[in-house]
Amino acid sequence: MIDFEKTGEKAHLIDKELERVLPKKGIENLHDAINYHMDTGGKRLRPLLAILACEALGGDVKKILPFAASCELLHNWFLVHDDIEDGDKVRRDKPAVWVKYGLAHGVNVGDYMAQKVFELILHSKDYGVSDDKVMKLLDAMVKTSLRTAEGQTMDINLRSNDKPTEKQYFDMVIGKTAHYLTVTLVGAAIMADREDLIPKLIDFGKNLGPAFQITDDILDLTEGKGRKEIGRDIKEGKRSILVVHCLNKCGGDEKKKLLTIINKEPEKTTDEDVTYAKILFEKYGSVEYAKQKAEKYASDAKKIAGKMPAQLKEILDFFADYIVNRRK
Amino acid sequence: MIDFEKTGEKAHLIDKELERVLPKKGIENLHDAINYHMDTGGKRLRPLLAILACEALGGDVKKILPFAASCELLHNWFLVHDDIEDGDKVRRDKPAVWVKYGLAHGVNVGDYMAQKVFELILHSKDYGVSDDKVMKLLDAMVKTSLRTAEGQTMDINLRSNDKPTEKQYFDMVIGKTAHYLTVTLVGAAIMADREDLIPKLIDFGKNLGPAFQITDDILDLTEGKGRKEIGRDIKEGKRSILVVHCLNKCGGDEKKKLLTIINKEPEKTTDEDVTYAKILFEKYGSVEYAKQKAEKYASDAKKIAGKMPAQLKEILDFFADYIVNRRK
Repeated sequence: MIDFEKTGEKAHLIDKELERVLPKKGIENLHDAINYHMDTGGKRLRPLLAILACEALGGDVKKILPFAASCELLHNWFLVHDDIEDGDKVRRDKPAVWVKYGLAHGVNVGDYMAQKVFELILHSKDYGVSDDKVMKLLDAMVKTSLRTAEGQTMDINLRSNDKPTEKQYFDMVIGKTAHYLTVTLVGAAIMADREDLIPKLIDFGKNLGPAFQITDDILDLTEGKGRKEIGRDIKEGKRSILVVHCLNKCGGDEKKKLLTIINKEPEKTTDEDVTYAKILFEKYGSVEYAKQKAEKYASDAKKIAGKMPAQLKEILDFFADYIVNRRK
Repeated sequence: MIDFEKTGEKAHLIDKELERVLPKKGIENLHDAINYHMDTGGKRLRPLLAILACEALGGDVKKILPFAASCELLHNWFLVHDDIEDGDKVRRDKPAVWVKYGLAHGVNVGDYMAQKVFELILHSKDYGVSDDKVMKLLDAMVKTSLRTAEGQTMDINLRSNDKPTEKQYFDMVIGKTAHYLTVTLVGAAIMADREDLIPKLIDFGKNLGPAFQITDDILDLTEGKGRKEIGRDIKEGKRSILVVHCLNKCGGDEKKKLLTIINKEPEKTTDEDVTYAKILFEKYGSVEYAKQKAEKYASDAKKIAGKMPAQLKEILDFFADYIVNRRK
């Protein structure tokens, strides 16, 4: 069993890698903005998974450090731009970067972080990683960013779609999350000369991704995803699994009212609106349906994990459990 | 003398490279948005320079095609995000991407293009470019994006600075343009095994960049930079060389009024405001000063070009003349 309390030292190694390319001091409204964002918490879960998976596959942990750190940066770059795209003003209980530093800096800071992702991976050479492997890591990272951005497009498109289907929802979710969640593991496989595992890891991601997103959709209604705000997704008009399921079940006035609520501007959506949507989700069994779906996907992910080398399987199982059982 | 009328075939090769990674059809509001932006014109000047420079240095032109195309994409990615950062609603006489497709897609489309820059460079392997060279191309591209984003930060910062100095202006300009303008040439040098030329090429850029930017600053007041709008920079509050020079020359009420004008929201700046600024620039010789500065930088750039291999020198001279003499 993986004890994340004992991974402090590894997290420290990641922070050192990040500091190498992101000095604490630098250009005003750039380096301070990145540090502001990176310091707002975040679990450093992704790089830890890269390290643990590399170790599990017998790879040289030191060599994966820059790539592992780049995964953390990738994650945070997406968050900086996502907050702009979603109009989210709060991130981890603090003002989002674009709110604190303004929209212009917000866009530019994200762009800079995206480039630092590649600078970090190129640094792998300093640890004796071969050109061939660095290229493969870069390729995996580019693929990940591209698939994620494609999924993000589908997500934005879906928000103005009043007849969202489950297929559209899952295409979007798999696009947004399958590569994104597993790129750390793919990097570990490359580093440990186990590229044969990559297709299975992507398959794992295609199941873990929906489990992750559905859990996220449900958490928005219960815990508020660390934003101290319940129902933010409803305000933003996100077509969550709950919305998609409910819209396909209800009809007449209920459907009309739900659409009116999710299509309102975020600021104009009231707490009563959110409550109405929640009650409707319960009435049509959408929450229960979502939970079952999440469990099914997580269980399918674990089946794929079961075909992996034993030590890697343990990490994947932990990851799957963590994704589904998290509270924020 | 380089005749750009005769470069149609080469431009076609570039478009083919771009089409390889950017299909005409694809995900709605992503691939169509990119094609919309890329079709809005643009001179394909950058990739042509890469090809011509590679040829001049005896490199294999075919091998530089993906990198050359990636430079065009880099340029266009920056434009998509720049328009958001500057609040520019019009690009090449058509609505900017973020205006036509919305802010969320605008940010995401730019991110996608940025990743496609790297996908393109990784494709160089298909043309038999060695891993070592691909890595160097990637490194040059990352450095370019980072320096440009740093310069962009300084540019945004400067817009809220009421005591901008010439040093701040030139630091910003060199950050934004020196690598950006020359990355095509650096790529050509890498491909042609003439990395010894890179420091000189960067020096060339450090002189060409200011010549380029100052010309841009002046064009904004005369030709409108293809936006059919004179004085857009004044409306956006950009600290152009004209503004910086004039603020350091005038005083009292004039200074106060100029600051009021450039610090107004773009929509609130009137044509009379622009005219007032123009008259003030003339009164204090700011336009003449700017022209002289541009010529000096261009001439210094040419001096550096003079130390290059003869065939490359011809291209650099053409580039320098083009930059300073262009009308949009």
